[in-house]
Amino acid sequence: MIEEKGILFILSGPSGVGKGTVRKSLFEQSTDLRYSISMTTRGAREGETDGVDYFFKSRDEFERLIAEGKLLEHAEYVGNYYGTPREYVEETLENGKDVFLEIEVQGALQVKQNFPQGVFIFLIPPSLEELKDRIVSRGTETEEKVKNRLHTAREEIEMMDAYDYVVVNDEVDNAVKKVQSIVMSEHCKRERVAKQYKKALEAGQS
Amino acid sequence: MIEEKGILFILSGPSGVGKGTVRKSLFEQSTDLRYSISMTTRGAREGETDGVDYFFKSRDEFERLIAEGKLLEHAEYVGNYYGTPREYVEETLENGKDVFLEIEVQGALQVKQNFPQGVFIFLIPPSLEELKDRIVSRGTETEEKVKNRLHTAREEIEMMDAYDYVVVNDEVDNAVKKVQSIVMSEHCKRERVAKQYKKALEAGQS
Repeated sequence: MIEEKGILFILSGPSGVGKGTVRKSLFEQSTDLRYSISMTTRGAREGETDGVDYFFKSRDEFERLIAEGKLLEHAEYVGNYYGTPREYVEETLENGKDVFLEIEVQGALQVKQNFPQGVFIFLIPPSLEELKDRIVSRGTETEEKVKNRLHTAREEIEMMDAYDYVVVNDEVDNAVKKVQSIVMSEHCKRERVAKQYKKALEAGQS
Repeated sequence: MIEEKGILFILSGPSGVGKGTVRKSLFEQSTDLRYSISMTTRGAREGETDGVDYFFKSRDEFERLIAEGKLLEHAEYVGNYYGTPREYVEETLENGKDVFLEIEVQGALQVKQNFPQGVFIFLIPPSLEELKDRIVSRGTETEEKVKNRLHTAREEIEMMDAYDYVVVNDEVDNAVKKVQSIVMSEHCKRERVAKQYKKALEAGQS
């Protein structure tokens, strides 16, 4: 049997858009995705297990791993490092499981550089969708307000450019359904499927 | 309000794979897709309405439309022409509705030439999937049988190359779910979404 490799899905989007809520709801419904386990230098809290909640590392180890390119992304918050270890992701994918990573925009851009074969999903606020729909027929707001909203919108739209998909977070259930459909359809992509079949045929010939 | 254009989805695959069954089940569940109405030179049967069941045309008219490039594909069966009129498809897409076309492989390849922006889905038989899974551990069949199966498989896999997605028709419900997920995720593609937002912003600026 020729095993299919898993796919890395990255969910990101502007701060406050509701990434965490969508991820939580997705994991309440779906069991096939593996959530990416982060690495950190902060101490384990009571009840936290190494390799389950986080991979706990010393600052020296973490910095060595950064230097060796062993992290798909990392950042420092209030004196501690947090990051996504490449090894855990790659091993899980090799075992045929999809990995799901929910992360801030800056981290997602780092992942994109280090793992471009991932599938990048950008979550946008319904306000941007509404803005798009109403932009032509505006007139109820002050010029200054409209200008500010357009400025924010422009920034958010520019952020999309590194992503494969854009999902409007109008309702959590809708957004989750869209993410699920992206996961399912990515497994039907011809490049991916045909490659497996061609490999199988070659194996059958030898 | 900036209208989103519809998408043309083409379902095809080797003869006997069950395209019609998948299409039928899809339309029993989904209402957002419009089924592409074919054009034909055969006479209307009792109860058939022009523009609903088919667009009925004379042979002269049909040949003129072929010459003018007004058909996305066409073929002749037992003395009558059948084809897919470009105009109906394009108008429906302009109105923001997705169009769904279920068609033989030869017709799908014509559509691909005339409407490359369509989304092409290849339905494959579960026997090909099984063959892939068992190909390495084979040994229960005669060499001749295996050779024949490999030959057919190779032909089917080569047919995939023009398609965007490959769906295994192992169970109709699974195949339908996958097609639905492809429809949903295609609407989330960044190129498509970002373009609309950028248009809206430009409209807002003027």
